[in-house]
Amino acid sequence: MLKVFICGGSGYAGCELLRILSNHPEVVITGVSSEKSAGKSVTDLFPGLYKYSKLIYEPLKKEQILNKADLFFLALPHAESQEAVDFFYINGKKVIDFSADYRIKDSKAYEEWYKTPHKFTDTLKKAIYGMPEIYRAKIKKASLIANPGCYPTGAILGLLPSIKAKIIDTSSIVIDSKSGTSGAGRKSDVAFSFCEVNEGFKAYAVGTHRHTPEIEQELSYLSGRKITVNFTPHLLPLDRGILTTIYCKISKKITPDEITGIYKKTYAKEPFIRVLKYGQYPNIKNVRGTNFCEIGLKLNERTNTLIIVTAIDNLVKGASGQAVHNMNLMMGFEEETGLKTLPLIP
Amino acid sequence: MLKVFICGGSGYAGCELLRILSNHPEVVITGVSSEKSAGKSVTDLFPGLYKYSKLIYEPLKKEQILNKADLFFLALPHAESQEAVDFFYINGKKVIDFSADYRIKDSKAYEEWYKTPHKFTDTLKKAIYGMPEIYRAKIKKASLIANPGCYPTGAILGLLPSIKAKIIDTSSIVIDSKSGTSGAGRKSDVAFSFCEVNEGFKAYAVGTHRHTPEIEQELSYLSGRKITVNFTPHLLPLDRGILTTIYCKISKKITPDEITGIYKKTYAKEPFIRVLKYGQYPNIKNVRGTNFCEIGLKLNERTNTLIIVTAIDNLVKGASGQAVHNMNLMMGFEEETGLKTLPLIP
Amino acid sequence: MLKVFICGGSGYAGCELLRILSNHPEVVITGVSSEKSAGKSVTDLFPGLYKYSKLIYEPLKKEQILNKADLFFLALPHAESQEAVDFFYINGKKVIDFSADYRIKDSKAYEEWYKTPHKFTDTLKKAIYGMPEIYRAKIKKASLIANPGCYPTGAILGLLPSIKAKIIDTSSIVIDSKSGTSGAGRKSDVAFSFCEVNEGFKAYAVGTHRHTPEIEQELSYLSGRKITVNFTPHLLPLDRGILTTIYCKISKKITPDEITGIYKKTYAKEPFIRVLKYGQYPNIKNVRGTNFCEIGLKLNERTNTLIIVTAIDNLVKGASGQAVHNMNLMMGFEEETGLKTLPLIP
Amino acid sequence: MLKVFICGGSGYAGCELLRILSNHPEVVITGVSSEKSAGKSVTDLFPGLYKYSKLIYEPLKKEQILNKADLFFLALPHAESQEAVDFFYINGKKVIDFSADYRIKDSKAYEEWYKTPHKFTDTLKKAIYGMPEIYRAKIKKASLIANPGCYPTGAILGLLPSIKAKIIDTSSIVIDSKSGTSGAGRKSDVAFSFCEVNEGFKAYAVGTHRHTPEIEQELSYLSGRKITVNFTPHLLPLDRGILTTIYCKISKKITPDEITGIYKKTYAKEPFIRVLKYGQYPNIKNVRGTNFCEIGLKLNERTNTLIIVTAIDNLVKGASGQAVHNMNLMMGFEEETGLKTLPLIP
Repeated sequence: MLKVFICGGSGYAGCELLRILSNHPEVVITGVSSEKSAGKSVTDLFPGLYKYSKLIYEPLKKEQILNKADLFFLALPHAESQEAVDFFYINGKKVIDFSADYRIKDSKAYEEWYKTPHKFTDTLKKAIYGMPEIYRAKIKKASLIANPGCYPTGAILGLLPSIKAKIIDTSSIVIDSKSGTSGAGRKSDVAFSFCEVNEGFKAYAVGTHRHTPEIEQELSYLSGRKITVNFTPHLLPLDRGILTTIYCKISKKITPDEITGIYKKTYAKEPFIRVLKYGQYPNIKNVRGTNFCEIGLKLNERTNTLIIVTAIDNLVKGASGQAVHNMNLMMGFEEETGLKTLPLIP
Repeated sequence: MLKVFICGGSGYAGCELLRILSNHPEVVITGVSSEKSAGKSVTDLFPGLYKYSKLIYEPLKKEQILNKADLFFLALPHAESQEAVDFFYINGKKVIDFSADYRIKDSKAYEEWYKTPHKFTDTLKKAIYGMPEIYRAKIKKASLIANPGCYPTGAILGLLPSIKAKIIDTSSIVIDSKSGTSGAGRKSDVAFSFCEVNEGFKAYAVGTHRHTPEIEQELSYLSGRKITVNFTPHLLPLDRGILTTIYCKISKKITPDEITGIYKKTYAKEPFIRVLKYGQYPNIKNVRGTNFCEIGLKLNERTNTLIIVTAIDNLVKGASGQAVHNMNLMMGFEEETGLKTLPLIP
Repeated sequence: MLKVFICGGSGYAGCELLRILSNHPEVVITGVSSEKSAGKSVTDLFPGLYKYSKLIYEPLKKEQILNKADLFFLALPHAESQEAVDFFYINGKKVIDFSADYRIKDSKAYEEWYKTPHKFTDTLKKAIYGMPEIYRAKIKKASLIANPGCYPTGAILGLLPSIKAKIIDTSSIVIDSKSGTSGAGRKSDVAFSFCEVNEGFKAYAVGTHRHTPEIEQELSYLSGRKITVNFTPHLLPLDRGILTTIYCKISKKITPDEITGIYKKTYAKEPFIRVLKYGQYPNIKNVRGTNFCEIGLKLNERTNTLIIVTAIDNLVKGASGQAVHNMNLMMGFEEETGLKTLPLIP
Repeated sequence: MLKVFICGGSGYAGCELLRILSNHPEVVITGVSSEKSAGKSVTDLFPGLYKYSKLIYEPLKKEQILNKADLFFLALPHAESQEAVDFFYINGKKVIDFSADYRIKDSKAYEEWYKTPHKFTDTLKKAIYGMPEIYRAKIKKASLIANPGCYPTGAILGLLPSIKAKIIDTSSIVIDSKSGTSGAGRKSDVAFSFCEVNEGFKAYAVGTHRHTPEIEQELSYLSGRKITVNFTPHLLPLDRGILTTIYCKISKKITPDEITGIYKKTYAKEPFIRVLKYGQYPNIKNVRGTNFCEIGLKLNERTNTLIIVTAIDNLVKGASGQAVHNMNLMMGFEEETGLKTLPLIP
């Protein structure tokens, strides 16, 4: 049994990780940290997680917990994660980091967008971006995974086949994303209180969201040249899910069937990608609680534009599910272990 | 592997049964019926249920399907179920019926509340009311289970320990229930359209809901004398869950600790009942997607009243989960098989 | 034009008062206070309230603002209101207080439930409980109004005709209330964040809610003898509205028509009470944004129980609308001024 | 007093028109039609609209009602409206039509998108597209108004200043719209039932929605040359509101201040347009129940793209409010009459 420790287990991502791992036959959770909830059990905080009544939150003391586990999941705030990741990594542990701290390879870009310098650039070089659909082979051999952001996951998976097949004008990309409120985390903030969010809908951080450089980095790698994108996040009045609508000009003559074929072929062996029939579109309700990414396609021949729509659950494929997928790959477990559940309907 | 057939699999209860059984190692689904959706696959109708892309809805032709399965789940409308249940039962099959048709032992009461005569009173006598917390021993030997209604499940489980312990005045019972909208089924009806339900809340069928005789029957059996209750259902603007608030006068001097002790002891061995600490109350969010019933207790000494609050997921403990629990008991499977999942948070 | 000042205008009740008064032809708002938002305009905080771009929040400095207005609305937290009310009152101003501080006539009961002593018992004696359906004549002559709580408004209006007509057993009253989340106020609190409330439903403060003594006080006054009630509030996942379901045993033989007649007659001249046809029930969606209380009735002859269901908008009839109604009465304005709007549908 | 008749008054747009007109001092409603609800009062159908208890739905018999009113609002389904509009118009009445039938000037384009021929092309030529911000002068003299569609209203108002100022590349326009569920109308359809919509979000009719030609027609008129756009509607799990996010490449060097200046200047005299400070974005909650369009702007200099975000209430500015605005202009009433309300917060 693999011993794992969860650093930062009282937020929604940590909580979702606990839910998924409760159903994983190869893993034992040896500890979970939280500063605010130290001393309480997981079940005290989340009565629904009844299986964890004996798992007690403890403060994060890195030296003391180092020997408690072989693999550390870190669901800490951005910037706070830097040092902890480095510590566990240089001490020979496997690390899966949910923060953005090890995702941006260019430490100057990191500093520019996250307003804090990167102090562990050597370790940064070792980190593998944990998107199995791109880096499966590297993940299998990795010790340090930078688990992708929720918005980047939906955006990159939507664009990957088109960019690899070189069918789009990469200077024209518009990524319009809509996320459920759990994406903002579990916190006291009047802006995310029920009455402010419910029956409302808005755009935020237009053109300035921190997930932008992560999307651009991976699309640029795929393309072989620098890509800049328009990325606009919006806040949906629902708990979970991100729907991303992507627009890009077509750069060559192509039919709907050919495009669908490219997507189906690219993802033919992927266990968690579902390419819909041409003309069908995803609904975040179809992927809720699952590790799936649903993709719908439309070629608008009047405007010569390809529209790609993707849906994921931001807490699963966009966070904890993808992390478990990465763990399965790193440890040589069967890839889908713990991730085969169906969504609640309705 | 147990072969099962689902009659009426295109509604929410059938759909939920498919979800739960997808995770059950002892069962193979050999068919599913739906008149309206005949010819389509389950995945055509519910894209999220991706595992069932080869399971095709067929019209319900009883003779033809009789040999396809050993156990039949029937999620058909009330009254329509009568004949189908009888057919499978007298042909030696195991049957779990989701309708009310075999729940009310008194066929006159059935006719009075359901406005249709019962034509199979011999078979009615054989039916066991499928609430494991009351009838576990009988269920293990049964061939025909009348699976309880959603409201009765939350109401009866809340009152059972108090009635058995004879601590309440059974003439004073008020049952105030609030159900999510999936309880109304999957149907075209302007009254259940999004804009009519959302941001609304109302009582309906006050004092006249058809689940009333079912609640009264079981409480009367437990008590040994005829009990009549006030039962008011309400419609919540959310998908799943029933919260029931029950009021009853205390008939003897008793402390909060004693009451909590009675509930904890009564349900000590029950795998799906969670009695909360005194002064804590359930939230339907804590049981969503699970087979649990959460129970909270309060003794109001100012009014000499016991208040019991229960929460269940109407589609799981209130329908398909309880049905699988019954199947596990009937077939000698481990009782919790397929039912150990944790709720999504949030 | 009446000059009014709003003390505490950055919460939901203050905000709703601003909305209602924007449509009132006899009133000019001369100032609004908020400690946290001092220096900002109302429109800065609430962009939808575009008419108030020049109304700037100021800290509450009682002496300085005393001469700015003839009537002061106070929407301050409980306990904080005590002194401010007294100050404006003894300086000859008209005062309408939204807090509980001047509602409970028995200062010992106030201290017991609110955990703070009452320091202004002389002024407390002068306060009139601002429910026009009971105290219209007194309100017209009053200088100090204790504006009723939201839950008490729905509960008392439901019970008033039955208690006055002496048709119920007053020892048997159960009040089961369900409130939208705006009732909790506008604040940073993880328990009221979107993801915790949405798709959830729970009871809270069972038998211990601070609105209990207020309900009991007014019912006791109406009845002529001490009444104790069971009161359970619940939290609805929607913005506005309270639905209250009330159960009481009938103390004399009576028909549905007679009961409906009593309610219709009692409220015949009331501009904001709508007694529905027997067998129809309120929906909080029907009263949203309005000052109406809808009432539905059911006589359950099987249990000898009267069930009364009421719906109000907690921010209008349960707070700011009732306050404006009181102001209209105090100032001799036409009673319905500013309060004739219809609800949004949907 | 202007006598008006509402043809098709049992849907959400008709209902909203009744709400708005209840507050309009210059208008008397002389009748309202509905086939399904004929014989019932408006209040029977919508208990919240208590002022209309004596307004009875009648079947639409054009000849019989011709003399009942001077102005006819038609909120009938697309295609059904054609003949009725023509009848009232040629008989000398003022007509405001909510359908798309008289919006598309090119009857071939109409037939192509709406799959039905236009039989009244002479009357079509007389219709004025009822967007006051473009056609105020013509509306004042018009007898027949084609009231704009909800999506086109949000899209056109967002693009108008940029197109007139010639600062964008009109071949690059992406319009990504998200609408509340009331946009689908009041109907029995499982796809719009609560449990299917709630906690879900999806794109639909990608590149094929019927509002596309209407948007393109008006943008082309404004630009002076043919414009083709990408338009994607999405379905939001809330009652009211449309948020539209628009992307277009900038065609000349320009600063954020200059762009904001263009928008502020263009709409300086418009009573219902609110251009936000640069970097602030609309929320549909801010305009709910009002006739306002909120506009936010962002110049993404990294991608040389202007992002425009607009919010309207689809039933007010996107339907009935804009219709009343048109009526006010046609009849010489003060422009804002009946439309000055503030939104409910929350």
